[in-house]
Amino acid sequence: MEPGRPGGSGPAEPGPLPRGVCGAGPAASASSLSGAEAQIQRCALAVAAVLPAGGRGERMGVPTPKQFCPILERPLISYTLQALERLCWINDIVVAVTGENMDAMKGIIQRYQHKRISLVEAGVTRHRSIFNGLKALAEGQPDAQLSKPEVVIIHDAVRPFVEEDILLKVVTAAKEHGAAGAVRPLVSTVISPSADGCLDHSLERARHRASEMPQAFLFDVIYEAYQQCSDYDLEFGTECLQLALKYCHIKAKLVEGSPDLWKVTYKQDLYAAESIIKERISEQICIVMDTEEDEAHVGHHFEEMLKNELNHVKVTSGSLCHPGRDLQQIILEQCYNFVCVNVKTSEFEETQKLLDVLKESNISILYPVVVISVHFLDHKSVPIGQEMENLMQIREFAKEVKKRNILLCGLLIYYPQEKQKLQDSLRQGAIIIANLIKERNSGLVGQLLVA
Amino acid sequence: MEPGRPGGSGPAEPGPLPRGVCGAGPAASASSLSGAEAQIQRCALAVAAVLPAGGRGERMGVPTPKQFCPILERPLISYTLQALERLCWINDIVVAVTGENMDAMKGIIQRYQHKRISLVEAGVTRHRSIFNGLKALAEGQPDAQLSKPEVVIIHDAVRPFVEEDILLKVVTAAKEHGAAGAVRPLVSTVISPSADGCLDHSLERARHRASEMPQAFLFDVIYEAYQQCSDYDLEFGTECLQLALKYCHIKAKLVEGSPDLWKVTYKQDLYAAESIIKERISEQICIVMDTEEDEAHVGHHFEEMLKNELNHVKVTSGSLCHPGRDLQQIILEQCYNFVCVNVKTSEFEETQKLLDVLKESNISILYPVVVISVHFLDHKSVPIGQEMENLMQIREFAKEVKKRNILLCGLLIYYPQEKQKLQDSLRQGAIIIANLIKERNSGLVGQLLVA
Repeated sequence: MEPGRPGGSGPAEPGPLPRGVCGAGPAASASSLSGAEAQIQRCALAVAAVLPAGGRGERMGVPTPKQFCPILERPLISYTLQALERLCWINDIVVAVTGENMDAMKGIIQRYQHKRISLVEAGVTRHRSIFNGLKALAEGQPDAQLSKPEVVIIHDAVRPFVEEDILLKVVTAAKEHGAAGAVRPLVSTVISPSADGCLDHSLERARHRASEMPQAFLFDVIYEAYQQCSDYDLEFGTECLQLALKYCHIKAKLVEGSPDLWKVTYKQDLYAAESIIKERISEQICIVMDTEEDEAHVGHHFEEMLKNELNHVKVTSGSLCHPGRDLQQIILEQCYNFVCVNVKTSEFEETQKLLDVLKESNISILYPVVVISVHFLDHKSVPIGQEMENLMQIREFAKEVKKRNILLCGLLIYYPQEKQKLQDSLRQGAIIIANLIKERNSGLVGQLLVA
Repeated sequence: MEPGRPGGSGPAEPGPLPRGVCGAGPAASASSLSGAEAQIQRCALAVAAVLPAGGRGERMGVPTPKQFCPILERPLISYTLQALERLCWINDIVVAVTGENMDAMKGIIQRYQHKRISLVEAGVTRHRSIFNGLKALAEGQPDAQLSKPEVVIIHDAVRPFVEEDILLKVVTAAKEHGAAGAVRPLVSTVISPSADGCLDHSLERARHRASEMPQAFLFDVIYEAYQQCSDYDLEFGTECLQLALKYCHIKAKLVEGSPDLWKVTYKQDLYAAESIIKERISEQICIVMDTEEDEAHVGHHFEEMLKNELNHVKVTSGSLCHPGRDLQQIILEQCYNFVCVNVKTSEFEETQKLLDVLKESNISILYPVVVISVHFLDHKSVPIGQEMENLMQIREFAKEVKKRNILLCGLLIYYPQEKQKLQDSLRQGAIIIANLIKERNSGLVGQLLVA
């Protein structure tokens, strides 16, 4: 047995990996998942995660601690929980929050239906919070059925974009080495100042790395380290890897992470996080058509136009005709954007059906869902003013579904006889749709736009 | 004379500061300016800036080098140039760009009317680019009337949010100490890996700093350092402060900077930069009313509502009546948001006048200007459909001014008799305006929204 290595066994051979993926969600990229899936093997490795979330967010310059700052009206920490809980090989997620935020945190878990979460009271420092989380796992809790894991992940509540790939890598490396952590190249040169505030020396950038999260540890290693830890380390230390080294002589394996691992620290990071989330949930559009297969009509021209103009977006077709079967599948695949093309009528019958399916699915609990009800105007037969007046009832539907986090807009497309002009109208419509989906602006719900 | 200090004179006493501010612009915060202005004293200190902009942006994951990536359709580097050129105490700004981007850069300077910029060819590394910029300043250039400055600022093309305050601080400190640079606390712990990719040791976070930009030097110091510099340093070195230390024995003064100094490095940083710029140009709205002082009418109610709802925004009133005098002043103060309230008529006469003033002012060269033409509907006297049809001509105006970077939308506000309902309509209108200004979505120009 190595000196200082607790728990009776040395680092295991590179073991097989935990298996099973609960759900990917838009936060998981296809490439990382396929890589991770290939690695997943039969194993009964028990993995838990601890998230210290007791920070007060002084650096943010806003009164709300950053982990509770809203992004698309949902607190940041909920995105991080979602990133972890979608991986069903993580058995328990222990979150350490301050007493004053305990109720708010319970509310978040309930509202966004998070699973496998246990709450513990945060300590006054990050290390004390992590230690409290580890204690809960070691000792079990009367109200939570926690059990001691073999490997524990430590992650930050403010790094919502963690991928399965890196989690698998640190868990595997921790199983082998006892400890592992994600690292990134340094963005800036690091310097050491002298006492009088002048440059003493610069560090060579290529020889250093930024230590990021997630990190993972054999549970017995990190728990032993915290138990032996000095008060000074619990107060002022920042780095779990260093504790494992200092108290258990475990040299953590360093795993290169992606830029996604960055930590929401300043106000500009919240902006960036919102843009990234908006981009991810805008990658797929589902078109629902109120007609059956008829290649000639304007709805199909429009679908073609959408596919051409939004070439970075996956455009799928859903149907409400066959009791919504394939639509259900699209919703399950977490599509958050729906274009309901009404060719046959200027009524909202089809759009209402779609809204009903969406409401039932609860898909809008996590992200605002955009629905655009498209109508066509042959201005030779109906004056545009009259048609617009007819379509204004969309305001009422929009108001109602807004409460369910569904953002409904109308789009009226001119339908001139001349082919070139029709193409222009359709293209303009596609541009408006692309914008509505990209911006996801709740202030524009119920509006009728004209292309 | 100190060893290695070139140019004949030792570090000067803390000298008086360069004076004069050309213009603040929305990128400058009021607080930093007032602090800086208090410091500005009579002085003839000659200051120039060098911007290496030869990077290829590999970290960005996009083909365009990051300094040329568009933000609100304007290249990032143009924002950085704007931040420097607004300070008229910076005499010359030398930008180093690669041969292949030289014409694009000339186009940017012309299109956005940048002043006091000289271009030099970038070297293959950042240091070689800076050296080329310094050589141009030392030797003068046949086509640019450059002269050797006493102090030179070195800044990054991808740090657009640099404030006058920090520039003044590094220039002053450089005059005193020979060299100075902005530093920031470390966001992540820095570690040193061992050869086998494991943790060797962590650095104590509080004892280190991230070295950021801007930096400033006595010209003779940094030029001497580059002239003595080894090929190895020119190829692999990253830090000008370190060169001044190594070759001229100058210990740079470190100046604590703000989070604004962060460098656009990854794609998420572009998102953050766009959001920050949008936020800054949305801080002021000018309301133009088509009536004279009559406190009773709906236009004034609406103005009150805007002031209440947009309480983070400075709402000013402009007028087109007195040949646009105060409007000119508001434009000079760089207001980018205009709400034209048409009470008397459903025509666009007043809006067109406003658009003409804006077009003439050229204010939309640097930022997209939002104009919202507000109209009221007493739906008892005119059917909404008809009124909407009348107002649809806004599409044509919008299309025309879009070419000038002016984003025009219409807003029709219901005007019901009942007081509470009117309040609701006006509030809804204010919310829509806030959203249009915040998002600055060019895909929605020409649309008529209804509150």
